[in-house]
Amino acid sequence: MFLDRIPESIDILEAHTRIQPHIHKTPILTSHNLNEIAGCSLFFKCENFQKAGAFKSRGACNSIFSLDEREIQYGVATHSSGNHAQALARAALLKNTKAYIVMPKNAPAVKVAGVKNYRGEITFCEPNLMSRESTLKEVLEETGAIEVHPYNNYSVIAGQATAALEIIREMGSPDYILAPVGGGGLLSGTALSAYYYGKNIKVIGCEPKGADDAFRSMRAGKILPSVQPKTIADGLLTSLGTRTFPIIKEYVSEILTVSEENIILAMRLIWERMKIVVEPSAAVPMATVLENPKKFKGKRVAIILSGGNIDLEHMPFSTKP
Amino acid sequence: MFLDRIPESIDILEAHTRIQPHIHKTPILTSHNLNEIAGCSLFFKCENFQKAGAFKSRGACNSIFSLDEREIQYGVATHSSGNHAQALARAALLKNTKAYIVMPKNAPAVKVAGVKNYRGEITFCEPNLMSRESTLKEVLEETGAIEVHPYNNYSVIAGQATAALEIIREMGSPDYILAPVGGGGLLSGTALSAYYYGKNIKVIGCEPKGADDAFRSMRAGKILPSVQPKTIADGLLTSLGTRTFPIIKEYVSEILTVSEENIILAMRLIWERMKIVVEPSAAVPMATVLENPKKFKGKRVAIILSGGNIDLEHMPFSTKP
Repeated sequence: MFLDRIPESIDILEAHTRIQPHIHKTPILTSHNLNEIAGCSLFFKCENFQKAGAFKSRGACNSIFSLDEREIQYGVATHSSGNHAQALARAALLKNTKAYIVMPKNAPAVKVAGVKNYRGEITFCEPNLMSRESTLKEVLEETGAIEVHPYNNYSVIAGQATAALEIIREMGSPDYILAPVGGGGLLSGTALSAYYYGKNIKVIGCEPKGADDAFRSMRAGKILPSVQPKTIADGLLTSLGTRTFPIIKEYVSEILTVSEENIILAMRLIWERMKIVVEPSAAVPMATVLENPKKFKGKRVAIILSGGNIDLEHMPFSTKP
Repeated sequence: MFLDRIPESIDILEAHTRIQPHIHKTPILTSHNLNEIAGCSLFFKCENFQKAGAFKSRGACNSIFSLDEREIQYGVATHSSGNHAQALARAALLKNTKAYIVMPKNAPAVKVAGVKNYRGEITFCEPNLMSRESTLKEVLEETGAIEVHPYNNYSVIAGQATAALEIIREMGSPDYILAPVGGGGLLSGTALSAYYYGKNIKVIGCEPKGADDAFRSMRAGKILPSVQPKTIADGLLTSLGTRTFPIIKEYVSEILTVSEENIILAMRLIWERMKIVVEPSAAVPMATVLENPKKFKGKRVAIILSGGNIDLEHMPFSTKP
């Protein structure tokens, strides 16, 4: 059974024990060069090196592994623009059950290939929430599979929370932890771990200006949907959920938004200086540091590099092919 | 004073002690996914994470740090297409002396920027060996600097040898160590370390078909120059040297050449599956494994990922900008 309450401290510790054999304890990398550029001490939690290329493996494993044999006998299903899809397909394969994935037809090819690699069965839909939800409904009715929502699921949130748990265990409490925010699964889990295991950590959600529903929702005090979001950060197009928003409202210090230019600049700096591949969504927290130098000056800032799945044919810095 | 003989076992150990405070002990990474594709166990020595982005920091530090104050009082100088240049500029900065760098005017912008970042003084020349050598001669005469050749220098070779020393210390003796070959500094050093510290390790030099002077030289038993080499692997355009060739002839098992297509494919696989940035030259050994599946089947194969300095504007897989 999925967790039926906001994850408590013990739930996140149990999630970590449950998924540990099936995920990487990803490294925390530092860069003297980027510290100089940013004017603070940066600690990069490399979930781009995570299984299936993103933190989503944590939540997918925890949710599926929380179910019993009977519950998963007809498979699992979800709609996802990519990383949750791959992670869920992988987790289902580990449990010898099927994964039915509804993906928008414009999902990056590398993410589609990833799902197929883990033998997920893909149904393509239009790239909007209504089509995603109606298509998923059909799939669920046809197959009898159980839905694993990408973020609006407490077991998923508890799984995503284990990244911040590992940060705090390895380096103690930083001044800040920065995570990108799309549907809010990673951000809400991070905020819970910072609250349960850290000391005076401020958690900041980082969002593209072109998809600023979390920023607007925080200001309004209620969930405002994402309206025609437009950003290179393809993992952050979704709106907050009814289970992530209340956690974010209570435990997250603030949401900061950044420009597309700074997302691309941040991504480029990470690739060039650290020699690691991150996807645009993962560069949003670094962009936030670049846009707010005074705020972070001299601080210890942990950044969750959320994923590394990017189509190499569609590089934003490829002006001359 | 530079080392005046083929490095002996003790010379490489001393080099390692000498440079250790100033270089990274780079990690050896593995990838389940790439092992499946290659059909063997791959161990990637990540010199792309090395200081200044390439293994060249090892040789540059060892050579400059072997000189006394008087010898480096007027600075150091070299010609280099890039990585040795950056590494030398950095090492000179550590010793508070000047670095004069002769670079071909078509050197990748990221490598030029790297040299400037370490305050190296650049003189541009035509992109051919004659222009590089004559320009360097002028610079040496004008400045009184001491030349640090990119590879035809025993102290440089001893420095490069420390990468393989670290491999053997960390993982024992693999069946193979694969290194790219340009001028032969890394390859000759690797072969010496495999001979001194390893047990039955075969060292293979990996070279683009479009710059196959090492392959031809080995077959001819004498140094044949690189004639109008053409390859995406911009670090491997140079010819073998009088100090590297005799070592390679004696201690390297063979030279294998690979196609440009496979270099690009190998580079793409490393970026996509391992989420790390390597330059084309660094992908040549992986391309060699892909081109010779039978040879390496089931073996333990260590690969030196030589560097990670690449212009992100000029990606070979960027068909759609």
